[in-house]
Amino acid sequence: MTGAGQLSIVGLGPGGPAHRTRAAEDAVRAAEVVVGYRSYLAQCADLTGSHQVLVPGAMGAEQQRAVDAVHAATDGHRVALVSSGDAGIYGMASLALCTVAGLAAESRPAVHLVPGITAATAAGALLGAPLARDFACLTLSDLLAPWEAVEARLRAVAAADLVLALYNPRSAGRPWQLGRARDVLLEHRPADTAAGLVTDAGRGGERVEVTTLAAMDATAVGMRTVVIIGASGTQRLGDWMVTARSLAEVAS
Amino acid sequence: MTGAGQLSIVGLGPGGPAHRTRAAEDAVRAAEVVVGYRSYLAQCADLTGSHQVLVPGAMGAEQQRAVDAVHAATDGHRVALVSSGDAGIYGMASLALCTVAGLAAESRPAVHLVPGITAATAAGALLGAPLARDFACLTLSDLLAPWEAVEARLRAVAAADLVLALYNPRSAGRPWQLGRARDVLLEHRPADTAAGLVTDAGRGGERVEVTTLAAMDATAVGMRTVVIIGASGTQRLGDWMVTARSLAEVAS
Repeated sequence: MTGAGQLSIVGLGPGGPAHRTRAAEDAVRAAEVVVGYRSYLAQCADLTGSHQVLVPGAMGAEQQRAVDAVHAATDGHRVALVSSGDAGIYGMASLALCTVAGLAAESRPAVHLVPGITAATAAGALLGAPLARDFACLTLSDLLAPWEAVEARLRAVAAADLVLALYNPRSAGRPWQLGRARDVLLEHRPADTAAGLVTDAGRGGERVEVTTLAAMDATAVGMRTVVIIGASGTQRLGDWMVTARSLAEVAS
Repeated sequence: MTGAGQLSIVGLGPGGPAHRTRAAEDAVRAAEVVVGYRSYLAQCADLTGSHQVLVPGAMGAEQQRAVDAVHAATDGHRVALVSSGDAGIYGMASLALCTVAGLAAESRPAVHLVPGITAATAAGALLGAPLARDFACLTLSDLLAPWEAVEARLRAVAAADLVLALYNPRSAGRPWQLGRARDVLLEHRPADTAAGLVTDAGRGGERVEVTTLAAMDATAVGMRTVVIIGASGTQRLGDWMVTARSLAEVAS
C-alpha cells in the first residue's frame, strides 16, 4: 500500500444526469477534490457540495489540470478529474496517466478510470444508427497535429468506406478545416452521402440535423457539434441516418 | 398522434449496474414488454418484474427479435429492446429502425434510442487511455460480410496508423480470423506494438491484459473479448496502454 491518495478519471457523458452512469456519479460524490474545466464542473454540480474542493481549469490548460489533479492525489486526497463524454476519448485520461507514470512508483496514487458515453455514441443515438458497423473517430483539430497528418487520416478513412465521426470539427479559431474535410470526402463519396450534425447532445439547445455531405452547412457547426458522415452502407430513412449491419462489397 | 405504442432501443452498457445510465434504467423499468437476447435480459433482471412481459431471443435470431419488438410496439405497448453495450454499435438499433421504416407511417410507433457505453470505451478505461486520439472500430465477423471486405478495411486502418478496436474478434465458429488480422497488422506495424485484450468488462470473470501485437495469444480471445491494437502514438506505461493526444508525423 502507498500513502498516496486516489485519482478517479471520470467521464460524465454527453449532457445532464440522464446519460451519466452510477459509477461516474459515485466517483464524483466520493471525491474530496474535483478537478475539471469549468463547464464540466457545472455538468456535475448536482453531485458536488461545500465539503468538496472544486478546482476549475481553463480551456487549453489541460496539462496544468492533469498536474493539479495528480498532485492533489499524491498529497493523499481522493480526487476526481472530470471530463465531458468519455475521459479516454479526446479527454483528460491520456495526460493524467502520463503524469502519474512520470512519478516515482512509491508516490503514485491509485488510479481508477470511469468510462462515460462519448459524443459519437450520443450523437449516433440521436441520429438513428449511423455507427451500426465499422466506423472511425477523427478529430479535425490541428492544435496538436500538423494539418497534413489530420488530412492523411481523413483520406485513408474516406477511401476505406468507413463511417466517420468528426470531433472538434470547427471553432472560431479553426474555421476552414471542416470545409476542407468535406472536399476531401467528396473525392471519395457521392454528394448525397448522408451526413448528421448533432450540437449540444443531451443539453439545453440540443440540435439534430440529417443532411447530405454536399448540402452540409459548415458554418452551422461549432465546437460542441459532432459531425457523422455516412459510408456506402448508410442511408437516410425519414429523419434517421442508418447504416446496414451487413457489408456486401469489398471497399475500394 | 398515432395509436401505436412506443419503442425504446436501449444500450445497457458493458456489464452490471455501475456502468448503466439512468435513462437506460428508466426505459427498461417503464416498459410493458422487454425484448432481448437472453443474456441481455439477465443483465437488466434487477430492473424488471412480474408485471412485465419478457421476450427472450436466441443468438443469431436478430431479425426476428427486431420484428417481435416492433410488432409489440405497433400493438400499442411500451416496449424496450435491449442490447449490451450501445444498441447502435453492432447492436439491434439498425435492424429495428429499418423494420419501423418499412411500416406505413400511421402504424409506426414512437421510437427513442437510449445510448450505452460501448465495449471499446469500456475496454479502453480498463486498459488506460488507448483511444485518446483517432481510432477505428471494426468487426472481424464475416457472418454478414465476405472476409475480403473485412480484410480490406483492416488493411486501410492499419496503413492509416489509427488505433483499432476489434469487435467479435473470435468465436468457436470463426477461429482463424484474429490470427489473420494480426498478420495483416504486422505488415504495417512493429511487432512490439501495444495490444490490449479485455474480456467480460464489468462482469464477473473480467480479464485485462496488455501485451504486444506479436505476443498476443489469439486462443485466449473469445466472443466477449475486445481487442485494442495501438498505433505509433501508443505506448505501454507499466500496466497501462496510453495513446498520445498529439500527432506529430504524417501517416504513411
